[in-house]
Amino acid sequence: MRKTTTRMADGRELIYFDDSEPYVSGKATRRLDDPRPLPDRFESMSAGPQMRQCPLTGEWIPMATHRMNRTFLPPADANPLAPARPGAEYQDGEVPDTDYDVVVFENRFPSLLAVPGEDTGIVHVDGEELFAAAPAAGRCEVICFGPRLEENLVDMGPKRMRTVIGAWADRTRELSELEGIKQVFCFENHGEEIGVTLHHPHGQIYAYPYIPPRTAAMLQRATAYRQATGRQLHEDVLAAELRAGTRILAEGEHWVLYVPVAAKWPIEAHLVPRRNVPDLAALNEDEKSELSHMYLDLLAAGNYFFADKVGKLNMPYIASWNQSVIGPGREDLRLHLQYFSFLRSPGKLKYLAGSESGMGAWISDTSPENIAERFRSALALASAEQPTR
Amino acid sequence: MRKTTTRMADGRELIYFDDSEPYVSGKATRRLDDPRPLPDRFESMSAGPQMRQCPLTGEWIPMATHRMNRTFLPPADANPLAPARPGAEYQDGEVPDTDYDVVVFENRFPSLLAVPGEDTGIVHVDGEELFAAAPAAGRCEVICFGPRLEENLVDMGPKRMRTVIGAWADRTRELSELEGIKQVFCFENHGEEIGVTLHHPHGQIYAYPYIPPRTAAMLQRATAYRQATGRQLHEDVLAAELRAGTRILAEGEHWVLYVPVAAKWPIEAHLVPRRNVPDLAALNEDEKSELSHMYLDLLAAGNYFFADKVGKLNMPYIASWNQSVIGPGREDLRLHLQYFSFLRSPGKLKYLAGSESGMGAWISDTSPENIAERFRSALALASAEQPTR
Repeated sequence: MRKTTTRMADGRELIYFDDSEPYVSGKATRRLDDPRPLPDRFESMSAGPQMRQCPLTGEWIPMATHRMNRTFLPPADANPLAPARPGAEYQDGEVPDTDYDVVVFENRFPSLLAVPGEDTGIVHVDGEELFAAAPAAGRCEVICFGPRLEENLVDMGPKRMRTVIGAWADRTRELSELEGIKQVFCFENHGEEIGVTLHHPHGQIYAYPYIPPRTAAMLQRATAYRQATGRQLHEDVLAAELRAGTRILAEGEHWVLYVPVAAKWPIEAHLVPRRNVPDLAALNEDEKSELSHMYLDLLAAGNYFFADKVGKLNMPYIASWNQSVIGPGREDLRLHLQYFSFLRSPGKLKYLAGSESGMGAWISDTSPENIAERFRSALALASAEQPTR
Repeated sequence: MRKTTTRMADGRELIYFDDSEPYVSGKATRRLDDPRPLPDRFESMSAGPQMRQCPLTGEWIPMATHRMNRTFLPPADANPLAPARPGAEYQDGEVPDTDYDVVVFENRFPSLLAVPGEDTGIVHVDGEELFAAAPAAGRCEVICFGPRLEENLVDMGPKRMRTVIGAWADRTRELSELEGIKQVFCFENHGEEIGVTLHHPHGQIYAYPYIPPRTAAMLQRATAYRQATGRQLHEDVLAAELRAGTRILAEGEHWVLYVPVAAKWPIEAHLVPRRNVPDLAALNEDEKSELSHMYLDLLAAGNYFFADKVGKLNMPYIASWNQSVIGPGREDLRLHLQYFSFLRSPGKLKYLAGSESGMGAWISDTSPENIAERFRSALALASAEQPTR
């Protein structure tokens, strides 16, 4: 894998990750290679987005209300994630090169953004002690999994998947080193049903300057468990799932795929490394290699989840990489992928209404064992379709 | 208000709340008045729904996987919340009487259900200590706000609203006394956009046998605040909002309506009593009376939120009554209504994708002050439409 770091016309970082020689991209490595008339993004920005802390629950809410400079707007029908058109005089997308394998760049309209020189200390809204606010000084990146609009990640094969994993690991490592970052979150929203508007195969990477609520809950529990038992909660949960065996979907040498005992989504599976690693950056080559196969197996199985009802479908899903925090408690949490979908049955979505959205109280209308049974059939069907994956 | 308690053919409780004489319902007060061939719901049920605790986050997830007896199914086009048709030989809905004002009954397919005699202690899934489960021994009720399919709560007027508040208070009081209930949650999901399939004006009431995550977060924070300062957090937050004034929408003698300083939804307002009360059952007559006006003002304003863009619309919303816990910490939390909507702009919904659904980390693309500005215009328009509400 070759990594080439460059910058866009407005100063945003853009990084190519190429699979193998001959490298298809990475020639345009200077800022001037992006010919768009984009002014430096910080030029007309006095402050970045703010985040405020809810005084009742303690959660931080970034508020992307700052006015970004929107001089440059691509045509409405353009695909901003596509490679530049060969021979075109003007570049209407984000990527200056005419081909790429995997490319990562800073989001043009980020909800988390560190503005150079900005004081990131706490301020008080309306001068009230209870109303804490601070710059949402994080980072939002986009990761394009491949150059072609119509090809989904699931169909790209383990070699490309290995490059994506390499890019995730690289971004996790680099973003973890930025000032004030508490957690790096690599994820993919897939499918129109969850509001995805850009169909180009891509994911996102958030570097949060605070600990998100799910992680905070896990951290609190894992730390209490460590204090009470001297052991790591995530390690013991994996051991318990393996002992129980009732929801295990696949066991690799380095990874285990299972439906968690208290799955809250209509479709949910966790892909967990056997070794105690905090994040993607800590994976070794063997682990990354096996992951590149098991991850695609999982995505493929998702598409067959309702095979008995409608055959294969393009499953809408969220693939959510839970990584450990940067800072205190880091050794108490462990890398795991939470794959889930809102789809209760073909064409029928789970809505997050009063109980979920109001109280944060999820209610399932299936059981983890039912999910596991369907996933096992789906994995078999996916493997029969593409036995060499 | 007259309250009449009865039971349906399958043993579920059904309670009429009538506005004023002549009372329109409440004659059918015996179980035999429901003529449907419904067997007792507990007859063929050995156990109710289970809930499991996520070992990583600690959240309880009810799983409605038990097989309910579905002998009786009304026709697909029937409205099960309508009053019975006068003169009909057979009743195809849930309500035996031919008219009503407000009626509350136990949900036919509840995700929370206490089965008489069932042991509600913790069991361990697969015999694993870390995998806690227990009966989801709570209760789910439906509240119909009025007899007519096409009339929304917002248009029913303060007298009916007062009856609804009375019913909420009654149910909160009674459900709080049930064994093992930790919190009573009165809420309304309004609008197809959030997955509502029954268009009859109705809300729901959940009695949770566990403390939901939002409440748990608030309780933890409020308790720490009490320990540090000797004061109640919610009281001080209200005082701070009043001092700041920047997001206050309306001030009554007993209630204050404002956009919270860290609003996480595209549209959000809190309606908060000035007096320190734990729940709706603790409100006095004056407070209930004023609430019946201010609640409707809020709903009406929601419909004018985008008046500058599309005029009046039927705003999809969730009205979520945060009540205190039953048990330790009760004095640390305070009643408040969280009204919110997913609608970012007309026809454009906020989706809860990776950050929200995966990490629990909400991101706003507006500001509380922008929301407050729109709400103020909307309240003025709503009041101009119906100045006597």
